[in-house]
Amino acid sequence: MSDPCGDAWLPSLAVGHASCPTARTGVTVILPGEPAVMAVDVRGGGPGTRETDALDPANLVERAHAIVLAGGSVFGLAAADEVALLLARQGRGLALGEGAAALHVPVVPAAILFDLLNGGDKAFARADGPEPPYRRLARAALAAAGPSPAMGQVGAAYGARAGSRPGGFGWASAALDEGGQVLALVAVNSFGEVEAGEPPATGAVPMPKRRPMAGLDRQDGADGLANTTLAVVATDRPLTRAAARRLAMMAHDGLARSIRPIHTPFDGDTVFALSVATETPPAVAPALLAELGTRAADCLAIAVRRAVLRP
Amino acid sequence: MSDPCGDAWLPSLAVGHASCPTARTGVTVILPGEPAVMAVDVRGGGPGTRETDALDPANLVERAHAIVLAGGSVFGLAAADEVALLLARQGRGLALGEGAAALHVPVVPAAILFDLLNGGDKAFARADGPEPPYRRLARAALAAAGPSPAMGQVGAAYGARAGSRPGGFGWASAALDEGGQVLALVAVNSFGEVEAGEPPATGAVPMPKRRPMAGLDRQDGADGLANTTLAVVATDRPLTRAAARRLAMMAHDGLARSIRPIHTPFDGDTVFALSVATETPPAVAPALLAELGTRAADCLAIAVRRAVLRP
Repeated sequence: MSDPCGDAWLPSLAVGHASCPTARTGVTVILPGEPAVMAVDVRGGGPGTRETDALDPANLVERAHAIVLAGGSVFGLAAADEVALLLARQGRGLALGEGAAALHVPVVPAAILFDLLNGGDKAFARADGPEPPYRRLARAALAAAGPSPAMGQVGAAYGARAGSRPGGFGWASAALDEGGQVLALVAVNSFGEVEAGEPPATGAVPMPKRRPMAGLDRQDGADGLANTTLAVVATDRPLTRAAARRLAMMAHDGLARSIRPIHTPFDGDTVFALSVATETPPAVAPALLAELGTRAADCLAIAVRRAVLRP
Repeated sequence: MSDPCGDAWLPSLAVGHASCPTARTGVTVILPGEPAVMAVDVRGGGPGTRETDALDPANLVERAHAIVLAGGSVFGLAAADEVALLLARQGRGLALGEGAAALHVPVVPAAILFDLLNGGDKAFARADGPEPPYRRLARAALAAAGPSPAMGQVGAAYGARAGSRPGGFGWASAALDEGGQVLALVAVNSFGEVEAGEPPATGAVPMPKRRPMAGLDRQDGADGLANTTLAVVATDRPLTRAAARRLAMMAHDGLARSIRPIHTPFDGDTVFALSVATETPPAVAPALLAELGTRAADCLAIAVRRAVLRP
C-alpha cells in the first residue's frame, strides 16, 4: 500500500482549470466520466452555491454531472450555467422527452469563492462593464479537463488568498485499506491561516501559546469579510447519496486540521463528495464509510498544504 | 490577558456530575443561572438527543433551561425528563397559565453517549430488570451543580472510552480579546483516538506516516459500533440563537483537531452552545463571533486532552 496521501489520480475523473490574469480570477470544472452520486456539506457562514438543494438525498435527482468551482463571488456562478449548457449540447444530462424531442438536462452543482477585491480588473460588475469572464473561463476549463491538474495559483484559486498568504489549488489521494481510492481537491481562499504540521504525537496536554488573532483585524476592511474554501472529495467506491453526505461531513475535519480558524462567518466553506462508480449500492458499510471519511479528511488537509505552502 | 485556554470558570454557569459505579455510567447537568440562548450542532452519524429541534432558530422557544449529558444510550435520555420535572417544581421554565394555575415548562435539551457494553451492570435494560439509574443520577447531578466541576472519569463520561483509552470529562476556558469569556466542556467517548500536540508550526508540507486504522477493527464487535463525544460551549457574551448555532458549528473543529477520526458513522457527536447573558442582542458582530468560535474550538481541543490524557 502507498502512503496515505499521495498523488495517484482517480481514474474516470477529469478536472480542468482556466485562469484570467486580467481579472485575477478563474474557474475549475470537475467532470466525472459518468453521472455521479454526489452530496454537499456547507459549513461556512457566507456560502455562494448553485444546485446544492438538488443534492439533498430527499430530493429527486440521483446523480449529477459536473461540479464547478469559481472565483468571482456571485458572478462566478455563471460558469456553471455555461458548463450545463455545453454538457447538454453534448448529450450529457438527464434525458427528458422522447426521441428527437429529447433534451439533456445536466445537474451542475457549483460553489464560488470571493476574489473580487484582490486587485484584478472587475469592471464587469460596474455600470457599462464588459462581459464577465466566467462563461468563457468555463468553456476553457471544460476543454482543458483531464487527470492530475496543476496545483497552486490556478483555476478557481487563481486570485485566492489564504490568511496572509496567496491561496491556491491542491489535491492529494489515498488508497483505502478496504480497496479503492479517495481523492481530495481544494481551492483555498480562507480567512484563517494554513498550518503545516506533522500529525501530533501523543503526550502531555499542551497549554497553547498565545497567538494573535491576526486575521481578525483584516475584516475591518471589506476584503477580509469574504473568503471561502471549496473542496471536492471523490472515490471509486460505490456510495449512496446519504453515504456521500457523511463523506463530505467528515472531510470538513481536514479543513479544521489545516486551517485556523475555518468555518467562520466570513467563509463560505463548502465540501462536495462524489463517487465515480457506476453502480449504486443499497447501503455502504459503516466501517468502509469511516475509513473513507478519515482518509478524505487526511487527504484534504494535505491538499490544503500543497495548495498554499508549495514547498 | 490569560493564556488562551485556562481554568477560569464562567460565572453564572453550574455543572453537576453523578456517577454510578455499579452500572458504570453517569449523568452531567449543565445549569445556567437564568434561561439561556442556546443552539446545537449534531455532526456524528449516530446521535441520541432530546429537545434539539426546539433549538432551531426558526422554532418558538427563545431560551432553554438546562442541558443534560448522559451515558446509557437511549436510556440516559430519561435523566433529562427528571431534570425537567425538578426544575418545573422549583418554578423554573416557561411560565404557562395564569396565577395559581401557572405551570413551568423547562426546555432541557439532552444528548447521550453509548456506554452500554463497558462491563457495568446494565440489567435494567433486560426483562424484569431494576429501575434504571438515570433519574436518580439526574437528581444527584442537579443537586451537585456548581462551578469548576471535576475532570476525568466522572458524570456522563464515567463509563466512557476514547479509542483505546478510558474516556473522560474535561473543560477549559479562554478570555476573549474583545472582552468576555468562552468555556468549553466535553464528555469524550470517541471511536477515534485523542491526539495531543502543540499547535503545528508552519513549514514544509508533511507527507503523513502510515497509521493503522486501529479503531476500525474494533467495530467488528458491537461495542465499537457505538461511541459519541458530547460538548457544550458557553460564553457570557450575548448571542442570538443563530450566532449560538455558528458557535456550535465552529466548536466542532476543536474535536477535529484533537480526535482522529471524529464525526464517523459510529459517533453521535453533538455540540451545544449557549450564552449566559440575560440580554438578547439584535445581532452579533461577525468579528466577535469569529473570535468566539476560534477560541471555543481551541478550548474544546484542550478540554478533550484534559479529559482523556490527564497528565
